[in-house]
Amino acid sequence: MEKVRIGISGYGNLGRGVELAIRQNDDMELAGIFTRRDPSTVKPLTAGAKVYSIADAEKMANDIDVMIICGGSATDLPKQTPEMAKLFNVIDSFDTHKRIPEHFANVDKAAKESGHLAFISLGWDPGLFSLNRLYAESILPNGKSYTFWGKGVSQGHSDAIRRVEGVKRGIQYTVPIESAMEAVRSGSQPELTTRQKHLRECWVVPEEGADLAKIENDIKTMKNYFDEYDTTVNFITEEEFDAKHNKMPHGGFVMRSGLTGDGEKTHQMIEYSLKLESNPEFTASVLICFARALARMKAEGATGCKTAFDVPPAYLSKLSGEELRASML
Amino acid sequence: MEKVRIGISGYGNLGRGVELAIRQNDDMELAGIFTRRDPSTVKPLTAGAKVYSIADAEKMANDIDVMIICGGSATDLPKQTPEMAKLFNVIDSFDTHKRIPEHFANVDKAAKESGHLAFISLGWDPGLFSLNRLYAESILPNGKSYTFWGKGVSQGHSDAIRRVEGVKRGIQYTVPIESAMEAVRSGSQPELTTRQKHLRECWVVPEEGADLAKIENDIKTMKNYFDEYDTTVNFITEEEFDAKHNKMPHGGFVMRSGLTGDGEKTHQMIEYSLKLESNPEFTASVLICFARALARMKAEGATGCKTAFDVPPAYLSKLSGEELRASML
Repeated sequence: MEKVRIGISGYGNLGRGVELAIRQNDDMELAGIFTRRDPSTVKPLTAGAKVYSIADAEKMANDIDVMIICGGSATDLPKQTPEMAKLFNVIDSFDTHKRIPEHFANVDKAAKESGHLAFISLGWDPGLFSLNRLYAESILPNGKSYTFWGKGVSQGHSDAIRRVEGVKRGIQYTVPIESAMEAVRSGSQPELTTRQKHLRECWVVPEEGADLAKIENDIKTMKNYFDEYDTTVNFITEEEFDAKHNKMPHGGFVMRSGLTGDGEKTHQMIEYSLKLESNPEFTASVLICFARALARMKAEGATGCKTAFDVPPAYLSKLSGEELRASML
Repeated sequence: MEKVRIGISGYGNLGRGVELAIRQNDDMELAGIFTRRDPSTVKPLTAGAKVYSIADAEKMANDIDVMIICGGSATDLPKQTPEMAKLFNVIDSFDTHKRIPEHFANVDKAAKESGHLAFISLGWDPGLFSLNRLYAESILPNGKSYTFWGKGVSQGHSDAIRRVEGVKRGIQYTVPIESAMEAVRSGSQPELTTRQKHLRECWVVPEEGADLAKIENDIKTMKNYFDEYDTTVNFITEEEFDAKHNKMPHGGFVMRSGLTGDGEKTHQMIEYSLKLESNPEFTASVLICFARALARMKAEGATGCKTAFDVPPAYLSKLSGEELRASML
């Protein structure tokens, strides 16, 4: 079998995760890393891996089966994915839920015009959580769905803390509220406010001489980020920060509480959860297994933009249909 | 939109569940119930529903889009599904895991020769649990998968209890062992024996004057059913039995503990669970939502035998691709 040749565009945490995930799949190979930085300054984790300027990507159009675009959703991906889809089959992890229809349309147009296949919004949310919402809601049409996130690091909220005056280092954990999840599991189908679903837990290293009470108040009252939540602010030393808050764990829960049967009184509960020590490494693992599916669907002639919803699950596995039926069904 | 016309072949707990699930999906309609009994003795839950002899099914070939075959896996489905696939598009819940490849081959041959589409082995295990094993193992190739069942009623083990001398009524619950699940969640990837994963909890109404010690011993030492498990046997009155053990709850857990990253040291945990008040009603809900997918795939020209692994998730939902991307992705 020919290996799927993977390009990585953007070499941050996610790009490095993709590089490492390729090593776990012997039907994949790293064809090149593309960066906006000076390529000579990028040190790949893989001996012999080639690093190119992103400006040279178009010269590589025949050497890459799937380009995985590891940029940010705010400004990178809305531009990069449609641009790259003109040259390559592409996958991204675009995660601004509200802008997905617009992003889909842009990528679909570029991919269809150039005859490429694009998968967008892959990872765990959007991605695996979306799939679980879809399966669960299709099976239990009379019901209510809930998504809880955490415990995990929110990059956006951590960035927001670090912009507060007097904050030297900062990190924010989103924490799902256990009693709310138990209420969902009971079948009572509660209406839950934002405050009832998640706590926000902040760990801050203050600048020397900073006004701690003011920092705490500035964080807790910050609009759109913290004001609708119960937030705790903990001050720690830089040593403790480096020792205990140097990872990017995340995860969460998708639940559906539904009713079936005569009079619709029978409670049925579906729950999916992830507990991830590394958010970017896990996201990368999802992207790589969908790269396998993309290569197969492309070989069958598919073009345009697709999401996880459109991919037959068997296409994700290295195993044949016969092997899957014998071992996993 | 034209409704999908559903036939129900076999009118036991699962058949009644399918009948009730149709009511929850306004793009489906009940076209007929087919029985081996005298049709006049079958009383459907739905006013006006038509009941036919299964011998008359072939006359209805043009009136049914999907026939859902609600028979048992031991003897009914291996015969019925290939036979019915000559006349109809069919779905079954064949759940004898070891015989799936053989059943698949038989159904595939019949369906291909007659130009029909067949889905086999749907429900939650095989079915949703299989899908979760497939997604999880594809995403985390370096890892270990675990399936736990329960707490729930095992029909086969309940039948076995009832065959023991001196037992008037009997029911058996399979109970997953919490400490084993916690060991899996810790990331230690334990090797678990049969005894370490599940308990078997039996509730028995003895015949008058029966030898209780002998019943208990006969159950606990029964080969293939109880001897490899820690089993408890509880004797109760018929009144208590009727009050507390009149439902068919079930459920379980699919877990994958995997490692990613540099040196493969980062622990990633995926867990899927079901807590079902009614096993047959939930299984029926799964069958009905796959009937929607079957009708769509058939309209696109698919024939032969397929499983949950082959169905793009979007086909399960009443919503359009556009609606799904806007609301669930």
